[in-house]
Amino acid sequence: MEALVLEKVHDLKIRDISIAEPLGAHDVRIKLHTVGVCGSDVHYYEWGAIGPFVVREPMVLGHEASGTVVEVGAEVKTLKVGDRVCMEPGIPDPNSKATRLGIYNLDPAVRFWATPPIHGVLRPTVVHPAAFTFKLPDSVSFAEGAMVEPLAVGMHAANKAQIRPGDVAVVMGAGPIGMLQILAALAGGCSRVIVTDVQQPKLDLAASLGAVTPVNVAKESLVDVVNGLTDGWGADIVFECSGNEKAAAGVFEPLCPGGKVIFIGIPGNPIPYSISAAQIKEARIEHVFRYAHVYPRAIALMGSGQLNVKPLITDKFSFADSIQAFEYSAHMPPTSVKVQIELPQ
Amino acid sequence: MEALVLEKVHDLKIRDISIAEPLGAHDVRIKLHTVGVCGSDVHYYEWGAIGPFVVREPMVLGHEASGTVVEVGAEVKTLKVGDRVCMEPGIPDPNSKATRLGIYNLDPAVRFWATPPIHGVLRPTVVHPAAFTFKLPDSVSFAEGAMVEPLAVGMHAANKAQIRPGDVAVVMGAGPIGMLQILAALAGGCSRVIVTDVQQPKLDLAASLGAVTPVNVAKESLVDVVNGLTDGWGADIVFECSGNEKAAAGVFEPLCPGGKVIFIGIPGNPIPYSISAAQIKEARIEHVFRYAHVYPRAIALMGSGQLNVKPLITDKFSFADSIQAFEYSAHMPPTSVKVQIELPQ
Amino acid sequence: MEALVLEKVHDLKIRDISIAEPLGAHDVRIKLHTVGVCGSDVHYYEWGAIGPFVVREPMVLGHEASGTVVEVGAEVKTLKVGDRVCMEPGIPDPNSKATRLGIYNLDPAVRFWATPPIHGVLRPTVVHPAAFTFKLPDSVSFAEGAMVEPLAVGMHAANKAQIRPGDVAVVMGAGPIGMLQILAALAGGCSRVIVTDVQQPKLDLAASLGAVTPVNVAKESLVDVVNGLTDGWGADIVFECSGNEKAAAGVFEPLCPGGKVIFIGIPGNPIPYSISAAQIKEARIEHVFRYAHVYPRAIALMGSGQLNVKPLITDKFSFADSIQAFEYSAHMPPTSVKVQIELPQ
Amino acid sequence: MEALVLEKVHDLKIRDISIAEPLGAHDVRIKLHTVGVCGSDVHYYEWGAIGPFVVREPMVLGHEASGTVVEVGAEVKTLKVGDRVCMEPGIPDPNSKATRLGIYNLDPAVRFWATPPIHGVLRPTVVHPAAFTFKLPDSVSFAEGAMVEPLAVGMHAANKAQIRPGDVAVVMGAGPIGMLQILAALAGGCSRVIVTDVQQPKLDLAASLGAVTPVNVAKESLVDVVNGLTDGWGADIVFECSGNEKAAAGVFEPLCPGGKVIFIGIPGNPIPYSISAAQIKEARIEHVFRYAHVYPRAIALMGSGQLNVKPLITDKFSFADSIQAFEYSAHMPPTSVKVQIELPQ
Repeated sequence: MEALVLEKVHDLKIRDISIAEPLGAHDVRIKLHTVGVCGSDVHYYEWGAIGPFVVREPMVLGHEASGTVVEVGAEVKTLKVGDRVCMEPGIPDPNSKATRLGIYNLDPAVRFWATPPIHGVLRPTVVHPAAFTFKLPDSVSFAEGAMVEPLAVGMHAANKAQIRPGDVAVVMGAGPIGMLQILAALAGGCSRVIVTDVQQPKLDLAASLGAVTPVNVAKESLVDVVNGLTDGWGADIVFECSGNEKAAAGVFEPLCPGGKVIFIGIPGNPIPYSISAAQIKEARIEHVFRYAHVYPRAIALMGSGQLNVKPLITDKFSFADSIQAFEYSAHMPPTSVKVQIELPQ
Repeated sequence: MEALVLEKVHDLKIRDISIAEPLGAHDVRIKLHTVGVCGSDVHYYEWGAIGPFVVREPMVLGHEASGTVVEVGAEVKTLKVGDRVCMEPGIPDPNSKATRLGIYNLDPAVRFWATPPIHGVLRPTVVHPAAFTFKLPDSVSFAEGAMVEPLAVGMHAANKAQIRPGDVAVVMGAGPIGMLQILAALAGGCSRVIVTDVQQPKLDLAASLGAVTPVNVAKESLVDVVNGLTDGWGADIVFECSGNEKAAAGVFEPLCPGGKVIFIGIPGNPIPYSISAAQIKEARIEHVFRYAHVYPRAIALMGSGQLNVKPLITDKFSFADSIQAFEYSAHMPPTSVKVQIELPQ
Repeated sequence: MEALVLEKVHDLKIRDISIAEPLGAHDVRIKLHTVGVCGSDVHYYEWGAIGPFVVREPMVLGHEASGTVVEVGAEVKTLKVGDRVCMEPGIPDPNSKATRLGIYNLDPAVRFWATPPIHGVLRPTVVHPAAFTFKLPDSVSFAEGAMVEPLAVGMHAANKAQIRPGDVAVVMGAGPIGMLQILAALAGGCSRVIVTDVQQPKLDLAASLGAVTPVNVAKESLVDVVNGLTDGWGADIVFECSGNEKAAAGVFEPLCPGGKVIFIGIPGNPIPYSISAAQIKEARIEHVFRYAHVYPRAIALMGSGQLNVKPLITDKFSFADSIQAFEYSAHMPPTSVKVQIELPQ
Repeated sequence: MEALVLEKVHDLKIRDISIAEPLGAHDVRIKLHTVGVCGSDVHYYEWGAIGPFVVREPMVLGHEASGTVVEVGAEVKTLKVGDRVCMEPGIPDPNSKATRLGIYNLDPAVRFWATPPIHGVLRPTVVHPAAFTFKLPDSVSFAEGAMVEPLAVGMHAANKAQIRPGDVAVVMGAGPIGMLQILAALAGGCSRVIVTDVQQPKLDLAASLGAVTPVNVAKESLVDVVNGLTDGWGADIVFECSGNEKAAAGVFEPLCPGGKVIFIGIPGNPIPYSISAAQIKEARIEHVFRYAHVYPRAIALMGSGQLNVKPLITDKFSFADSIQAFEYSAHMPPTSVKVQIELPQ
């Protein structure tokens, strides 16, 4: 099959590759339609590795995907040929303790698309377990379906935050993860999101997403804005999406007593963490690692119109222009959020 | 002062009444602007009592109120003269164990407006603790401010439900409480609300509020609709707002495994409750009694545009027409939801 | 193999029966050592059915079991031949939504030992998934290991109760389930358990288990005792273990504001349930259906000496005397709690 | 009255001091019996300050106290003259938002005994709000009553940890706080506590407290011990009680996927905190600041025998020897845990 193959660092090719795809009884075969480009895909392209995951063999990229079911396994009852679907890219070991507990995202044996040595899905078809394949309602397009994966991180963080209706949240960082976090926080019950960044175009786009207050921390004090909006009490929740070490070290300042911090961004180094600053507010900290059980929830919110990702799908490329799409993604202007690639149908 | 006084059953008068209103150090004096008519006000008017609470002396009615601060006590720091506000009508004993635990709504010593023998606020002014008086943002009108009280019940129920973003909820009963529950559930993170009633005009209004599926249970099966919308899994949450004994007995049928039921309506008699039906789904049941700590949250959601109560404010009367307003409320058409009375300014 | 077979109502035989036991890659083969007699076993013996579960073919009884691993499947890494173990008797469908969510006990497809048509384990050997087979520490005997199953119900209820250290609990009913609930509640953090019954010998045994206050409700008022012990505040948790309709209807009386009720017993009919009585305390209700994820926890508490089931193992029979054991169990004196059968080794 | 007065750094005197003690309607007057010496008392003695709290005027020390009610205010209904009691040393502002929410320990206006400029209770009598004064059962001695304060920290941490019965916990640091944390964790439902330190005598004492596994981290690997005891899964909870920066930075290593970390110790500087290490396990972090609502719970566990602090009361001094008690506490041998001072009766 013809796929987008990362041969090695900085060497992407559209070429034929042979991938065995036997269809198990609980699997479906999906014709891919739309695949989003994720920062991790671009990182493998530019650096050949993410932490311990090193690209040693040619690997197909892409894991934010939607498509159409073209074949179903013998035991599959929840899906049928022709269903429009999106897919969770990680498949856990069904026999692990983490999976049995329902926290399958923490299973160290998870096989995740486009994480070496597992192939991604910038290719014509893929075989996938029906349990990790989710039907899209008519009101959700393939493009939106391919946004479920990155949105799932924000949804998972919103779950961890145990938002109480009317909470005021801070989202640190207006990159793609921060943008989707804003949507998940508002759909999840927040009355207002205060978003920080130093790039004004990103803040302007964020401000257009709803009840959002942008704060350019190069010019304004986040704490002052939060105190002004909360009568000095502080924000109920801080979603740290920047991965910036200085930002991450400052999460307790805008926080209210008894507030919650969710670490979504991944700083490269340990941050300086003031236990006493966290104690005086009895902060609760949660950390997210991918997601679990949120695909149906994200799709339901999109399908009913409670959450709209369309303003974040800023750039489209055809599969033939995939390499150009990666080059563009590697040097994305601040007004771009999500680049997607459409496969031939 | 001139007030709307319930002399005894079916005997309402607008007349002068003397109410002492000393201003304590932590109090504010408020000029009332808008007061909504609640089912309990009407019930006292028609029956003279609600359960153990019996109207034995003339009592001013009304407890859903907004107004303007006209005087502040010596120690008040959070409010100033001219602030537009709404007020929690119940004041707990600050020395009770329930209050200390933060569950002040469960303090048996709560003094609640228009609950005998405490006067309500269909009168020119009231003195109230600043701690239970909340500033309205410019974007929230007095009429909306007077909706915070009934909305607070729905907000409190939404809190108890611990909604996870994307949950599907059932709201049983499309009366005023059910309507506000729909808004609170959607603002709190539900992807869709399925609402039941037997009066089609109420269902039609409910359906106009957003991602709402109306079910006329005189004609359709709730369980069938829920199963259709959830692939047979069931609803994550059932909010029982009808107070109807048969409806309340059936809450487990549309519920998913591990789902939650919130009892908001108050049936007059014990309901038949199937423990085994609840066990097979390990249902969690919560009960609400008024509300606690939700006024700022409701106001924040209104103020940021995440929750809109305006479609539910269906009828307005001047204070001079208060008695007519109560007569209307006692025989309200199904297209009416909330009747409000405006006081002279 | 020679097993205890329920041929039909009231017809138990020790006889040869053929049961196919292929060993899968993730399975172990266990030689049974001790099997407890559960009320459900006795009920099948006496009535031939429990609700929709009807004994239509000869069925081996017994599901509270411990034994020794005698063979392990190719992929099993957590167990080895010679390990002393106990087993969860219910095996869920690994592909169900409930299982994936971690609430596998709510999977309707669970196959449960000695629930028709699944054979129980009063027989020499059984093949079982390693994931539902748990190693016993040296300090836990086979007899104690066979107590893990009934204790698991109490552990699961203790989990659901989210006990806060120092809580005061009521356990309604001093039968086997109530006795194990007392142990789970005390090990789980309760400072005191108030147990009710009308049979004094059961209450006397319960009182010997630790910080337990027995209340003979034929002679004393539960509410008076609870109020006396809690300065009139009420009990934090009520565990309803009696299955008695009148007891179950009265759970809100001894409860504190904001308290929790756990329904463990299964009344045959719907109970009269006062929503308003539950609302005035904002009671939270939880229901348990078997258990999930608690075996390792129960074994750990036994193994470290924090929880001691030995006083509840009151009667032992050899396998040859199994029928006598069932007859005894069907007419058990109030001083007996758990009858166990030892298989030939 | 004659009190133990810290005049300035290193200058302690037993001398007359005048402290006004008017009795309010909701207050009681208490004759002090036993006062424990806390690390903070010793710190003020040796350094004259803790962070922003500086001893500028002579201040009476001591805040871990028990005594006898000798006078009650007009509105006090829960206590009477002669009651043996212990007291919470911190009194919040009843009008603060934090207090109203039930998180009164986070109220910045809390007035706390022996925290400048508030006098402590190494003196004959004190007037205190009845709401923060708790009756001791007959089975709890004055010495044990004076242990409730330091135990309350451990109880609060155990609450925050939301222990599930059977959890395995690590307690880092076998100082007084760690010792009390062990007791709270075991009473709160843990099946086993693994405690770390580098001083063997402390570990030996800790090991005598129950289901405790001591680990001398100067000689052994904590992770190896935890993995050995949990089949490689990890500990459910880590209570960081050492305040040591290196220990605090290592909390994620022994933790299980989905596990919880509670920071109780207070390192002097920010610690290096690996967000990615926390994310891969989706750790939840809680921080404690003093305690709220746990005195009755601690007393109940002591009173029923579920928690025994007596082994930790290692040293007693008379009030006349108070200065000697502080000198001893400042250079305490590793076999000492808690020093108490008895006042003249």
